Amino acid sequence: MIRTMAVVGTGLIGTSIGLAISRHGITVHLLDKDEVAARTAAALGAGVVGASDEPVDLAVIAVPPSAVGDVLAEMQARGLARSYTDVASVKAELARDIRTSVDTPSSYVGGHPLAGRERCGPLAARADLFEDSAWVLTPSETTSQDAVNRVFEMIALCGAVPVIMESRAHDNAVALTSHAPHLVASLMAARLQRGSREAFRLAGQGLRDVTRSAVRDTGLWSDILQANAPAVAGVLRELRDDLTTLLATLDDLSNAPQDMRSQCLEPMVDLLNRGAAGLAAIQGRQATDRETRVEVLVAESPGQLVRLLDALKTFHVEAEDVVPRHSTEEGTFSITFAVPAARAGQIVLELGRAGWNAQSVDPVSGARQQKMASVLSP
Amino acid sequence: MIRTMAVVGTGLIGTSIGLAISRHGITVHLLDKDEVAARTAAALGAGVVGASDEPVDLAVIAVPPSAVGDVLAEMQARGLARSYTDVASVKAELARDIRTSVDTPSSYVGGHPLAGRERCGPLAARADLFEDSAWVLTPSETTSQDAVNRVFEMIALCGAVPVIMESRAHDNAVALTSHAPHLVASLMAARLQRGSREAFRLAGQGLRDVTRSAVRDTGLWSDILQANAPAVAGVLRELRDDLTTLLATLDDLSNAPQDMRSQCLEPMVDLLNRGAAGLAAIQGRQATDRETRVEVLVAESPGQLVRLLDALKTFHVEAEDVVPRHSTEEGTFSITFAVPAARAGQIVLELGRAGWNAQSVDPVSGARQQKMASVLSP
Repeated sequence: MIRTMAVVGTGLIGTSIGLAISRHGITVHLLDKDEVAARTAAALGAGVVGASDEPVDLAVIAVPPSAVGDVLAEMQARGLARSYTDVASVKAELARDIRTSVDTPSSYVGGHPLAGRERCGPLAARADLFEDSAWVLTPSETTSQDAVNRVFEMIALCGAVPVIMESRAHDNAVALTSHAPHLVASLMAARLQRGSREAFRLAGQGLRDVTRSAVRDTGLWSDILQANAPAVAGVLRELRDDLTTLLATLDDLSNAPQDMRSQCLEPMVDLLNRGAAGLAAIQGRQATDRETRVEVLVAESPGQLVRLLDALKTFHVEAEDVVPRHSTEEGTFSITFAVPAARAGQIVLELGRAGWNAQSVDPVSGARQQKMASVLSP
Repeated sequence: MIRTMAVVGTGLIGTSIGLAISRHGITVHLLDKDEVAARTAAALGAGVVGASDEPVDLAVIAVPPSAVGDVLAEMQARGLARSYTDVASVKAELARDIRTSVDTPSSYVGGHPLAGRERCGPLAARADLFEDSAWVLTPSETTSQDAVNRVFEMIALCGAVPVIMESRAHDNAVALTSHAPHLVASLMAARLQRGSREAFRLAGQGLRDVTRSAVRDTGLWSDILQANAPAVAGVLRELRDDLTTLLATLDDLSNAPQDMRSQCLEPMVDLLNRGAAGLAAIQGRQATDRETRVEVLVAESPGQLVRLLDALKTFHVEAEDVVPRHSTEEGTFSITFAVPAARAGQIVLELGRAGWNAQSVDPVSGARQQKMASVLSP
């Protein structure tokens, strides 16, 4: 059981950890070379300023990646804690440094909470920052089990979910899912310096989404990127190859007569399709989840379709996922939508109770099952 | 005054226009080569299926860009409407085609509502889709004033804001603010096909934001991009130049010994800074807006800082924009934040009324103005 903790570095992440842990009545000692930052964190309720007289159970080194090694060595020399972790977003190089430069590497386990906000500093901190997010740990074969278990406990108190990974696998993963995307956002955002006010009136959600993650904290990011440069370069090199092909296609399209253009499109269509497939991969559409199609016959009279869409919202079926089709019955639509197979029966039942003519359609044979609505009619 | 309208093409945009206009009691005739789509739009309340017997005041051609010319010619030949507009997102080439291929080009004014959703089709339509968004019109010198005024009226009924632009300027603007960003999102999303499930556990908001706009509707986007290829290529070529420099920097960082890396960073830092500047440009932080700094002294006792942050929220001052500093008074913080100059007096006054020790600080001289709180004390 953790009874005392220390947080070294009371920025956004450190202060948020302090807030999350202090809620549980555990004393958190707050240290920062910027004394105002530590006092601010304390005033927010993240803990008390200054080190404890005796070693705490666990200290979190929440300083920029390039400073973690030195701060860890210093804190171990001071005997600040029994176990240590950090929050740096690049792990392999750091692990190597720590193995060679620190007295007791076994008391340290690398950590990386996958949470953050656009703003930094203690005043941006939130006790619920880590709730339900992943928190990677990268123990080596020499890491003590005690250290890992103490960090597990802290992660649970923060409401996060631990993920054990090998440090190199972690770095490759974040190159793809975090570092390259941030750089891509910066690359697009850099184009906007030349934009006119008139052009910006046409800016919509798409531009805002793509550029939102553009790097603001250049110092922190230089730190991160230099520690993970080969992995990030690997992702961006593939992207550049696609971009080169895309530019060639756009040039072909610019030069071709209008009626010959469709012959140039193929490489671009291939890229767009791969992009759509990649998007589907992270949006978690599990093609393996078995789905059942439900069909509802709707009279083509005013308001009926709107009423049905409202009813479907209660089952979390969005209007956009609904397909209207011709029906063999005069004056009606056949409205179909897919739902998880396990919930189809219940949904058909409830729609029938509410007076809709609903049935589920077997996904394999397409055969309609007996109409639940009729079965339920008294 | 528009009294009757037609919408040709009842997808997301056409149906949303129908819904927005029908609210005002205007009859909207809905036409689509897919009869179910037109009937679906009608069932949602977007209008009535089928053309009117006599010409309507205004017809919106809401079909994919490459089909606009032919559909417009066909509808003019049928005498569907007195005036025509479209909703295609590329305008210059289309305007050229229409000038040469259509009988009465003067009755047409090019239009582009800057609104959309990720999903398409009539069931995704919303009456408020265009509210407060820009709607570009690209009249030429031969466009009739009647046509433009009718479209102005429709735009007002949709709750949108008209923007008159030259068609080439429009196309360059959307290349920067929409077409290139969508392609950049696709380029990043295409990398994700190779990602492991483990890597995706680490995916955060950044990745989701950057890839959200990846092209889904490949057919529509091939249409858009081939009509605006030169402008889009211009934006992406600059991006590729930056990407090439970035890759060279990442390679240098990969090869340099750890203590020599800071010498390689400069080109990357330059890119990140330009990205941050571009981001600020579209996030509408007007450096020219005069701001006044407000200072509040806060006791370092439990809960006071949290109470102040809550109070500031009522003035739309976010915690992240607040800077805590040492104060010369023992046991207190000096908390400062910037607010629009015009509102500073009122904010200081209200903070004072609530018992806070607040004052505004002259932005030029840094001199503190007389403490409002003291002035107000009875």
